[in-house]
Amino acid sequence: MQGELEGALSKLFGTDVATTAAGRTDAGVHALGQVVTTQAPGDAEPQRIKSALNALCGPSIAVFSCTRAADDFDARFSARSRMYLYALLEGEVHDPFLAGTSLHHPEPLDLDAMNEAAGHLLGNHDFSSFGRVDPEAGSGRRTLYELRCRRTGRLVRIRARANAFIHQMVRSLVGTLVRVGEGRRGPDEMSAVLAARDRAAAGPVAPPHALCLVAVEYDEGWSRPIDPYG
Amino acid sequence: MQGELEGALSKLFGTDVATTAAGRTDAGVHALGQVVTTQAPGDAEPQRIKSALNALCGPSIAVFSCTRAADDFDARFSARSRMYLYALLEGEVHDPFLAGTSLHHPEPLDLDAMNEAAGHLLGNHDFSSFGRVDPEAGSGRRTLYELRCRRTGRLVRIRARANAFIHQMVRSLVGTLVRVGEGRRGPDEMSAVLAARDRAAAGPVAPPHALCLVAVEYDEGWSRPIDPYG
Repeated sequence: MQGELEGALSKLFGTDVATTAAGRTDAGVHALGQVVTTQAPGDAEPQRIKSALNALCGPSIAVFSCTRAADDFDARFSARSRMYLYALLEGEVHDPFLAGTSLHHPEPLDLDAMNEAAGHLLGNHDFSSFGRVDPEAGSGRRTLYELRCRRTGRLVRIRARANAFIHQMVRSLVGTLVRVGEGRRGPDEMSAVLAARDRAAAGPVAPPHALCLVAVEYDEGWSRPIDPYG
Repeated sequence: MQGELEGALSKLFGTDVATTAAGRTDAGVHALGQVVTTQAPGDAEPQRIKSALNALCGPSIAVFSCTRAADDFDARFSARSRMYLYALLEGEVHDPFLAGTSLHHPEPLDLDAMNEAAGHLLGNHDFSSFGRVDPEAGSGRRTLYELRCRRTGRLVRIRARANAFIHQMVRSLVGTLVRVGEGRRGPDEMSAVLAARDRAAAGPVAPPHALCLVAVEYDEGWSRPIDPYG
């Protein structure tokens, strides 16, 4: 996605253009409220850049807004927190309309156990059991502000919000919570999983297509409206 | 879709199996509440057939229910009416999440004019201006019970219900209503379009991917729950 956006920007400006994105979206991960900063050469009107990008990008990218940012604003480093949503579809039969954005889980999940486990993971911890730490960035320490599971009909949605996430962290948290929801792990094992600082201690990494970056928080507010019950 | 389902049935029973579907779904058209009858050889339990079909079919087909039907039941000929929904997305920027199931229409549509036009099309008419009539089936006469447009946020949904539809009829009705919504045709032209019995009199055929067969009505009720405001 970022590559396609940079390609469109480079075509538009006739020179290589790099971008910085607020939230991780590994291959296959969706994004609703992604924020991207770039150093645009020249003096083009933001509204014209937006229109040009929507014309140049394929159907999988939509640019909703384009504005001139303050000099010290950076999509990534100015962000206060990121919110992700992971969608699981319970029930015997999968749903073709949701196949691209949810993971089919035929057996019902124990949400009480999952939410109990989630509670043990909240707060400031070294999350290196739940993801790959970029050696340059150093530490796997992050602050997880929210991690909770809700059921709406057949959909079970897991919402995760942190100041930042290490690589594959949301999908690894989800994979671990699902194991708890299946009764294969206990909620009270979570502290030991955190303490292990070993990826083998956590559950598997859930597949990317059911994960979505919902919004990014800045001093000025969220990049798009947040559903408090989402 | 029907081909894929018949392929799975044939593999399951080890012999060629034909099916009859309740509602037309041309290539690209989606279906939520499609009903299919088939003559299954042998004495297999419906629940086992359902599981086997869901395992054999790809992710674009889901079999929600499988039951033994009365001898005189036929998915197509026993149906009392069919309901379709066409989705248009207004607004400058398209939505990647809805790209597969809606048609982007950047300019706002005049829904009052569209609903006025729709009113002229209700009832029992020869609809051959709005589709291809199968020479074997003879007449293009059908009864259109409902045709109305509703806006929910950026989505404009057109719901059509008739005893039956001729080939491409919903998409042709939609293409004509969109012309009215754009101010390029008047609502009071509809009677003349019907009377012409000429496809050139109607608007263009709207693309298939934004159309969905919602449900089929039988003496026993609808094939799935109907949203009265859908």
